[in-house]
Order: sequence, then C-alpha cells, then structure tokens
Amino acid sequence: MPETSAELRHELAVANRILGHEGVIDAFGHVSMRHPGDAGRYLLSRSRAPALVEPDDILEFTLDSEPVKPPTVQLYAERVIHGEIYKARPDVVAVCHHHAAAIMPFCISGDPVVPVFHLGAAMGPVAPFWDSRDDFGDTNLLVVKPEEGASLARALGGHSMVLMRRHGATVVARGLRELVFRAIYSCDNARYLSEAKKLGNFGPLTPGEITLAQALYERPNTHTRAWEYWATRLAKRGGMPAPQPAAKPAKKVTKKLTAKSVKSKGRKRR
Amino acid sequence: MPETSAELRHELAVANRILGHEGVIDAFGHVSMRHPGDAGRYLLSRSRAPALVEPDDILEFTLDSEPVKPPTVQLYAERVIHGEIYKARPDVVAVCHHHAAAIMPFCISGDPVVPVFHLGAAMGPVAPFWDSRDDFGDTNLLVVKPEEGASLARALGGHSMVLMRRHGATVVARGLRELVFRAIYSCDNARYLSEAKKLGNFGPLTPGEITLAQALYERPNTHTRAWEYWATRLAKRGGMPAPQPAAKPAKKVTKKLTAKSVKSKGRKRR
Amino acid sequence: MPETSAELRHELAVANRILGHEGVIDAFGHVSMRHPGDAGRYLLSRSRAPALVEPDDILEFTLDSEPVKPPTVQLYAERVIHGEIYKARPDVVAVCHHHAAAIMPFCISGDPVVPVFHLGAAMGPVAPFWDSRDDFGDTNLLVVKPEEGASLARALGGHSMVLMRRHGATVVARGLRELVFRAIYSCDNARYLSEAKKLGNFGPLTPGEITLAQALYERPNTHTRAWEYWATRLAKRGGMPAPQPAAKPAKKVTKKLTAKSVKSKGRKRR
Amino acid sequence: MPETSAELRHELAVANRILGHEGVIDAFGHVSMRHPGDAGRYLLSRSRAPALVEPDDILEFTLDSEPVKPPTVQLYAERVIHGEIYKARPDVVAVCHHHAAAIMPFCISGDPVVPVFHLGAAMGPVAPFWDSRDDFGDTNLLVVKPEEGASLARALGGHSMVLMRRHGATVVARGLRELVFRAIYSCDNARYLSEAKKLGNFGPLTPGEITLAQALYERPNTHTRAWEYWATRLAKRGGMPAPQPAAKPAKKVTKKLTAKSVKSKGRKRR
Repeated sequence: MPETSAELRHELAVANRILGHEGVIDAFGHVSMRHPGDAGRYLLSRSRAPALVEPDDILEFTLDSEPVKPPTVQLYAERVIHGEIYKARPDVVAVCHHHAAAIMPFCISGDPVVPVFHLGAAMGPVAPFWDSRDDFGDTNLLVVKPEEGASLARALGGHSMVLMRRHGATVVARGLRELVFRAIYSCDNARYLSEAKKLGNFGPLTPGEITLAQALYERPNTHTRAWEYWATRLAKRGGMPAPQPAAKPAKKVTKKLTAKSVKSKGRKRR
Repeated sequence: MPETSAELRHELAVANRILGHEGVIDAFGHVSMRHPGDAGRYLLSRSRAPALVEPDDILEFTLDSEPVKPPTVQLYAERVIHGEIYKARPDVVAVCHHHAAAIMPFCISGDPVVPVFHLGAAMGPVAPFWDSRDDFGDTNLLVVKPEEGASLARALGGHSMVLMRRHGATVVARGLRELVFRAIYSCDNARYLSEAKKLGNFGPLTPGEITLAQALYERPNTHTRAWEYWATRLAKRGGMPAPQPAAKPAKKVTKKLTAKSVKSKGRKRR
Repeated sequence: MPETSAELRHELAVANRILGHEGVIDAFGHVSMRHPGDAGRYLLSRSRAPALVEPDDILEFTLDSEPVKPPTVQLYAERVIHGEIYKARPDVVAVCHHHAAAIMPFCISGDPVVPVFHLGAAMGPVAPFWDSRDDFGDTNLLVVKPEEGASLARALGGHSMVLMRRHGATVVARGLRELVFRAIYSCDNARYLSEAKKLGNFGPLTPGEITLAQALYERPNTHTRAWEYWATRLAKRGGMPAPQPAAKPAKKVTKKLTAKSVKSKGRKRR
Repeated sequence: MPETSAELRHELAVANRILGHEGVIDAFGHVSMRHPGDAGRYLLSRSRAPALVEPDDILEFTLDSEPVKPPTVQLYAERVIHGEIYKARPDVVAVCHHHAAAIMPFCISGDPVVPVFHLGAAMGPVAPFWDSRDDFGDTNLLVVKPEEGASLARALGGHSMVLMRRHGATVVARGLRELVFRAIYSCDNARYLSEAKKLGNFGPLTPGEITLAQALYERPNTHTRAWEYWATRLAKRGGMPAPQPAAKPAKKVTKKLTAKSVKSKGRKRR
C-alpha cells in the first residue's frame, strides 16, 4: 500500500461516519473504496456499524472479496456487493450499500425513483431495480454469494444507483466524496418525490436537464463544499474517528521529553 | 439471585434506555427479562420512564406479577403483560410493551403489519391484533388484571409481536438484545410499510423469505453489531445508566496508593 | 403572593420550557397558571419564546389581563386567551396556547381531532372548533380583544382543548403538570390520527373508554412519571431555567464572606 | 463601508447559520443583504455552506454581482439571484435562496403555496412560480447568467417569495430578521398545507386576513422575539460564528494588566 494509506483509511472512516450521521446508514450497510494503488483490491471496514468505523478497522480485499490478510475479526457478509461491482465497473472507485428510510418505501412499492430536482440529478436518469427473486427465488435477501453480487452488478449496469426490492440500495461513484454526495442527495430526491406524489402530479427533469445537472455534481468543488458541511456537523456531535497519524512520522525523537510533552505528542499521534 | 445479577440489571437498564433513545418508548412502556436463575420470576423496573431506569430501580416479580420483596416504590400498573406472557411462553426471555409512533397508526386503523424488508423479518410473518373490547368491553385500555394479561398472551400465541388496538404493541424474544433488535426493526418495518402504502401497491416478503431472514436476525453476532451501535449513540448523548459495580471486587487492596491512583481506580470501579 | 411563589414561578418556567423542548411550542405560544393564592389573578411570562422563560420573567395579571404592576417589559398580545378562560372556567388552573405542527393540519382542514388511543383520552372526548371569522370576520387572527377571548372561552365550553381555525389550539387543565401532559399527548394523538387516516379507516375510542381512560390521566402519579421524563430530557440538553432560590433563605448571613463564597452563593440564589 | 460593518457581517453570518440550523438551508443555498451604506452593493458570503459562514467570509458585490475586490476565494455560482433582485426591487434589503425540504414537494408537483395560518401570512398572499424551462429550455437548473436572474426577478414581481420549479425558492424582505422570519414560517406554512391537503379539504386565509396578519409580521418586535429564540437554539448547539470584534476598540489600554485580566479581556474581544 502507498504511503498515503493512513490518510485514505481516515477519509474512508469519515465517509462511513458522515453517511451514518446524515441518516443514510444505521447499524447495517457499508462503504468501500477501490485501492488507489491496486485496481484489483478494495478497502472496507470489518463488520461494524459504519458510524463507528475507525481507520484501523479498514481491511484490504481482493475483487473476489477475500481478505488479503487472514482476518482475526468478523467481516461483512455482503462484501461481494463491492467486489463484483468493482469487477464489472472499472470506472467505479467507491461503493455504498444502504437501507435508508428515504428509499425503502420505493424498494417496497416498486415505484421508480427518478430525479425531480437539480441536486437529485446527481443520481443520474433513473435507478434500475434488482429483485433477488428473479434469479435466486426465496433467499434471506442478503447478497452473499459471488453470483448474487454479479447479478446485482448486471442490474446496476452503467447506472449510479440500483434499488434492491425489499432490501435497500447500492450507490457507486468515481470518488469517495462524489459517493457521499450522491448517496445523500438521492435520498433527498426520493423523499421529495414521495411527498410530491402524495400532493398530486409531478413532472421529472428532462433528459437534457439531467445530463447538464449531473455534470455539475461531479465537480470536485461541489463535493468539497458539501463535505465541509457534513464533516463539520459530524465533528460538532463528537462523531469523528480518532485523528489520523502524521503521514510522515519524525524519524528522530529528542531524548528530553517531559511527561507533558509525551502526553500531547501521544494525543497528536493517536 | 446469581452473582451476575448486577451485570444483568445494568444490561436491562441499558436495554430500557436504548429503546427510549431510539424512539420506541417515551414516558410510558416497559421492558423486562426473565430471571436467568429462576424461570418463575422476572426482572422489571419500578414505575419510571424507561429512558431513566437505573440498575437499582430493577425489582424481582413472580409470574403472578407480585413483587418478591414488599415494595417501597410505585410499580408499573401493567406488569401482568409480562407475567402472563412468561407463564404462557416458556421460550420467551424478554418482553417489551410500547406505544411507538411508528406502530400507533396501525393500532388505530387496524391495518396489518407484515414484514416488507429483510430486517423487518425480525418480527416474524405477521403481528396478530388484540382488542381489549373483545373480552372486556369498555375499559381504560390498560392491561392491569391477570385475565387481561392472559387474554393478551393468547392473542400473541406463538408470535413475536402482538398489536393492541388503540393502545400499542408488545414484543417478545429469546434474549434481551434480540428483543431490542426486534422492537426497533419492527418499528422501521411499520414506518416503511406505511409510506409504501401511501405510494401505491406493495408486495410483502414470501413465507420462505421470512423464515430464512428471521433465522438470520436471531443470531447473536447480528445483535451484537446493532447493540454496539445503539449503545454508542446512547452513550454519546449522555444517556447511559450509572456504571455497574465490578462483578468481583478485589478482596485486598495494597496499602501504598497515591491520591491519584485511588482516584483513577475509583473511576474504573464506579 | 404566598411564600411559595418563587417555586411556583420556577415550576411555571419549567412547564414553558418542556412544552418548547417537546415541540408543542416554538417562538410563539404561551403558558399560564392561575394564582394559587388569589383566584382572581394569573401568572404569565413577559413576551418571550416559552423555551427561554426564566422565573423572573413571570408577571401577575388580573382576570381582565391587566398587569398588576405597571410593566417595564413587552407583554404577550394574546393574554386575554388566559384571562377570559380563567373567568369562564373556575375549575381551570392552567392554560396553554400553542401552534404545534401536529395539530395545525387539523386547524387548517377542519377535520375533527378525537381520541384514538389510551393516552389520547387525556384530551377528553373531542376538541371543539373556534373560528374567528364567525364572530369577528376578517382579523389578523390573533386573539387580543377581551370579546375575542370571551368568544374563544365560549367555544371551549367545558372541554379540555379548543382548536382555533387557521391558528392553533388552547389547552386547559386543573394543574400545571396535567396541562403539560394533556398538551403533549393531544399532539401525539393528532399525529397518530392523521397517519391512521392516511392508511385507511379508523375507529375512535368509545365514550366509555374515554371516560375511564381520562380519569387515569388526571392522576398526579401519572403526571409525575411523565414530568420526570420530560424534565430530565430538558435538563440533559441544557434547557433548564436558572435554579430556584431556596424556599426559606437563611435569616442571618455571617459577615466574613470571601469573594469566592459570595460568588457561589450568588449562583445558588440566581 | 460604514463603521458598523463588522456588526453587520456578524448579523448576516448569524442569519445564515439560523437558517441552516432551522432546516431551511443545507450545504447549498445562500443569504445576502443590501449594503446599508450603498444601495448599489450587497453583502454575501464566499461559496460555503451557510451554517458555516464566518463574518470574515462575507464579501461585497456590485448589483451586477461582480465582487468589489478581486476575489481570492470561490464564489457562489448563483449570486445573480441576489443582484438581479436588488436591481429590480429597491425596497428589498435581504434575500435568501434555499431548497428546504418543506417546499420542495410544491416545487416538484407545481401545487401552489398559499398562506393557511396566521404566521404563514408572513409570506404574503401567494408564492408565484418560476420555471427555468419557459425562457431558457434545458439547463442545469442553476441561475447563473444575469438574464436568468432577471427572469427570476420578473417572476417574483412584487411578491415576498418565488418558487422555482424543480429547484427551490427565493425569499425577500425589507430587513434581515424579517427575511429569517419569513423564510422559516413560509416553510412551516408549506408543511402544514401539505399535511392538511392529505387529510382532505382546506380553506386558505381570506385576502383581508392576509393583509392584516402580514402587517403584524413585519413589526420589528415580532422578529426580535423569534430571533432571540432561534439565536439561543443555535448558540446552545455551538453553532454561533466567532464573536464580533468590539465596534470601537479602546484607543488606550492601561499598562497594569495582570495575566488574568488580559485573558478575560481577550475573551470579550475575540
């Protein structure tokens, strides 16, 4: 792994926690990113509520969703969702699987989720449906076998989000911050769409509007502004992970350390 | 009571508080567990909002819902709900009675609550209805007489949850963490079902899916992951009960203790 | 005023703040109680958001809603709501006027609010409607003239709550804690009723159930349990008013006070 | 800029943060005010989530929405909304553009938002609609060109709020606190209207009621009471900007300052 891996694990932990704090994920669901130094691997936490993920919880997996090092901890049962999508979609750099309250009514009713406001265009033109029953009949609804993950990846196709009947959604993106942005605003879109349907008729965005607006929400400075907002909200509620270690730790430490300086150093490092 | 009773009372207090913090219970409702050392008794707080229950509030009751020791405090009026279910259902180890906002519309409308997503299967195939009017006509709707509790237990039958018309719900489980899991996710299920019905049609899980998924949500490691999440959320909001005393206090304490070491020891113990 | 007046003002401030914290009242609305030593007067805050009311903000008014002492602060414009109800209803000891989100849809649509669950019976059999247009035509919708307050009091009649078309609600009770209880649970009742109506049909409580259950929610120990819950929630969020002064301040204060002891004494008193 | 500019920037930052904290604005949206010393300029933050705006983030713009000083930071793309409205409406002193959850369903469904309760009258008789498609066809839905801003300003006309199809709303007022008041209560109005429509019929305020009530909500003491409430809520959650510097710093500082007095002075100033 490259030198930047500690920072990456920290960023991935923050992404997990933001999605927990903003109500996209609860005790379940998971968030991964492709390994920046090896396209054949991805980074994902051990089995743990995303809102609690620490950088040290993050492990490396092959695209067959096998842990690179023999694991000593419990792993997410559904990690093939991530591995099979990374296999099928070389452009995808980050994946989130969730069961957000905003999208569950659509997963249950089968009503399509289409973008109905400018920020909703971040999800693309429509979220296709995947139904585990089509290929696998009665299951416990989890996606745990490689062929289940591959089936889901086929349903996703070239889209940015796939809805899973009676289960949840999986969102993909070309970067971690784009993923967080898309996951949060596709939930907002579903929420507003649901309320608009109860009020009466509604008209979705046109294909042209979707293309133009989606381009807008793939720009890094858009993500940066939103990320600062969500990260600050998280930090104010005491939700940040342990601080990341310095990228390049000092090689030499002077001998004369008072008890106090050791303590504050410890805080910085830990 | 066994040596572990202090830990059990602490765990039961935390279960009460998690259900309060996650919006299942407000000022009313109650959570009990069967006595692990005596199947003919159960543990339940004195009359108090569950979010405030301390380990010392927890008392022992016979299955006739009589306090084992003469009480000096106010007791829950509806404790026969617990006693009569423990009598009728030897497999049940924990019981929660609540009036969660998520299920009240169903208790009022009489619409059935059926599982509509994988985690919803934790509640089993369907929640039967109990109507106090059927056996007792006009009452104040509380379940206070043994025959009222027994009637409710009959309506529950072999199920995991029973809905009480114009009143609330009672959930049962084979363990305290399973109970918390089931109570929270059956509320989520009701919420999503309600929204899906407003959107249009919906199809419930198949019997096969329910059986397979419910098995999944009876596994301890599933509960552990969710419990860690809910307990951490509770702790971050300052909602934890007073810490439990050490299970086996040290018999001997060495004499040479500085003021500082005593203080930190105190913190650990208290 | 009797010796207990400092405690009463503190209790009234807490009632104001609980109703603010639990979402019944926002920047507007107000909560009063009849003067316990003089049935011809009532206590009400100066014009201020109820969530911010301090004991020192509370003033005395005659039943004509005139301040007993010449005021140096802004007064609530709608205090005739309180005065006219205290005149018309000798049994009423506490009054709350609010615009809670839970009841506004009913005030706007004109759908009746009837009790649909046991705790909802705290509001009594039904909340009558008052429409300012009936007696006064186009107004700014505030109740500011004595005749407007008297008209509202007539619509309230012997009930516990009156809904005000396109405006809000006024709730009355025979005690301050009963008032808080009734205001909060009538909002819950409206919320559940609204959702049940969207699901489909619903059946209200029978007259017999309402009478039996309402009796239950007029008992002090019911209010005490709920009050402890709401007050603790408020306190945990830092929402309590400045502590009440000791009921019987020491007659003698020793001369030798250090700066420090004066300061901490100040805190206790303030 | 006049001597009061530091206070004004602080007040504008607080307005931004209140609207963020009360759920009107999230990561996007923006709040401006006309320059009190130069009607040809306005004050607006650099591109940043409004909940995070600091007084130092606030910049000056001409009515053509050009920064008065060459910017070193990212600017809001949609600032022509502000500039074009200030041009078209000399009476307008403050502008807020938002995408609040409460109004989005109306922006999507096209249902009109009309005042349905007394505080809702703060928005005036009705919010007209603007549809970017009418003049500009397919766009990314942002309002970035001067002609787009001018088109929106024409749709606003003499009203207090304009709804933007599939996008959001823009609210205007004759003062910053009136703006915050109007933005928050128009959202409440939309929320209650939406729920009332789901319950059944509803009747809006009469033109006479709107005129009389709106006059009420343009009074400074009404805004002051609500502002104190919202600002206190914000402060309790740690949401206030850095304190404003003293408007007129002392010219002379006496020499004899203990370390302690310097520190407390520092706190007051910073």
